[in-house]
Amino acid sequence: MIRALERIFARGPGLGKKVELGIGDDASVLRIGPERLVWTVDACVQGVHFQLGWLSLREVGWRSLVAAASDLGAMGARPLGALSSLVLPPGFSRQELIELGRGQNQAARELGCPVLGGNLSRGSELSIVTTVLGSCKNPLLRSRARPGDELWLVGEVGLARAGLELLSSGQRSESAAAKRAIRAWRRPIALIERGLELGRVARAALDVSDGLSGDAVHLAESSRVRVVIEAVRLEKALPRALRQVGDLLGIPPLELALLGGEDYALLAAGARGRRPSWAHAIGRIERGQGVVIEAEDGTRRRAEGGFDHFG
Amino acid sequence: MIRALERIFARGPGLGKKVELGIGDDASVLRIGPERLVWTVDACVQGVHFQLGWLSLREVGWRSLVAAASDLGAMGARPLGALSSLVLPPGFSRQELIELGRGQNQAARELGCPVLGGNLSRGSELSIVTTVLGSCKNPLLRSRARPGDELWLVGEVGLARAGLELLSSGQRSESAAAKRAIRAWRRPIALIERGLELGRVARAALDVSDGLSGDAVHLAESSRVRVVIEAVRLEKALPRALRQVGDLLGIPPLELALLGGEDYALLAAGARGRRPSWAHAIGRIERGQGVVIEAEDGTRRRAEGGFDHFG
Repeated sequence: MIRALERIFARGPGLGKKVELGIGDDASVLRIGPERLVWTVDACVQGVHFQLGWLSLREVGWRSLVAAASDLGAMGARPLGALSSLVLPPGFSRQELIELGRGQNQAARELGCPVLGGNLSRGSELSIVTTVLGSCKNPLLRSRARPGDELWLVGEVGLARAGLELLSSGQRSESAAAKRAIRAWRRPIALIERGLELGRVARAALDVSDGLSGDAVHLAESSRVRVVIEAVRLEKALPRALRQVGDLLGIPPLELALLGGEDYALLAAGARGRRPSWAHAIGRIERGQGVVIEAEDGTRRRAEGGFDHFG
Repeated sequence: MIRALERIFARGPGLGKKVELGIGDDASVLRIGPERLVWTVDACVQGVHFQLGWLSLREVGWRSLVAAASDLGAMGARPLGALSSLVLPPGFSRQELIELGRGQNQAARELGCPVLGGNLSRGSELSIVTTVLGSCKNPLLRSRARPGDELWLVGEVGLARAGLELLSSGQRSESAAAKRAIRAWRRPIALIERGLELGRVARAALDVSDGLSGDAVHLAESSRVRVVIEAVRLEKALPRALRQVGDLLGIPPLELALLGGEDYALLAAGARGRRPSWAHAIGRIERGQGVVIEAEDGTRRRAEGGFDHFG
């Protein structure tokens, strides 16, 4: 996805002297006076990223802002604000727009990321494009992992995917674990404060939006290293609720964790001694390339990558 | 349009101390160190803003970047860069994506506004959301016009609308005027340098994207003044080609000028003695409210406003 854009816009004009980083990370970076600004954009399209039967409009609004702000967290940046561009389908009412905006406002309050402006347009499907700006001293890039680093997971992975599987398969369960999984998908949280703290101790980070396995591939490619995910340590880091919902769905929790992404956890790499107590060590960085899942007996399998729209 | 968003996001969290201006102008304004950053977003949706029969994909790409950057010009800001979020319909090929990107790159070079990043997504229709950042010392707001100011028009209005009317009505003409009108719609220019110069002499400005008449309403409302457009002076400022295409279409050139917007001209207000030679005086600012078109004999008619999606 990023590569297709890189190929196209590499032929554009040169970047000005205030631009430190263009396409290729979670966000672009500009240097303005003493500060670095981190800037990114994210789209939520009806029928692609969500179905309205599975979410209220308030939840759609919430998720759209969280998904964009999560990239700021992954860069170790503090949000300054967001702009929201809304494409509204025929018949979308003023009340529906207010509900959507309420969800965005709730997330904006939660994340300290006010909506400063935006744009309304008609179209055939509901589509929300959110651009966010944040500031930081030193952005946490995905290209700085080094062989010898530990691989850290901050936050939970897999539950949101499990929730989505429950919703899309129509399976109903009143268990607390199922409810938690559905809530993880409907109301994810961007780990802004954790990202700021990681900015002081980690070497590299990115958010888990395409799936742990696919995002580990992005980390490996950007840093030109091999990422080793240790299955046993990852399994230990998984919430108990994920095992319960995995049983219900008949999907191994490890698979949900590796393929699920929309929890907006953070994946980071850093020196062993610098790992904060709230970060789970789930593997390590080696010389080489690609991502491997290592079983307890040392056998390895190659992980699947993220998806490329024109791959 | 802006009002609907204002009402919704006024209930969000407070703006941080770096935010000088939220919703309500051509762009939001942030204060970062010694600089002011101007930030805005714009959407181009297939079937709403363009039909693919009337434009090549390269022209779609060009227009999307120009439309967004025009708001920077209207604020007197120099572009830093753009992020481009693309929603691609089924069957959209890699070659088509490259064509679209070429048009964006061409505009990026023309405007000095490189594309720094973006986002690809699937959807049912082609939709391009472009967010741009610019910097300036003192942004040119739309809220600062004062009674006694002259009303200035920079650039051409009406030709792009005439070109769109030619394309949508299927009328063919090989006249130079018709070709110029079609080109004005297909390849508009954002007046970045003019905007920077206006920043030093004008009191208020905005770009003409919704139509001269509708955008004059925005100026009147934001500045709490009445805008008087003098029909004779406006007619004198119109390009000769507009009269020729108006004859062809059977639409008075003045109507094309008042309702046409996608030329991305600039509308400004400033003290009489400070008007640059390249700005046409087309009216004046009075105490009061609304916009009136004043004929040579002094009779006045109220101008139509811009459109509100939920008006």
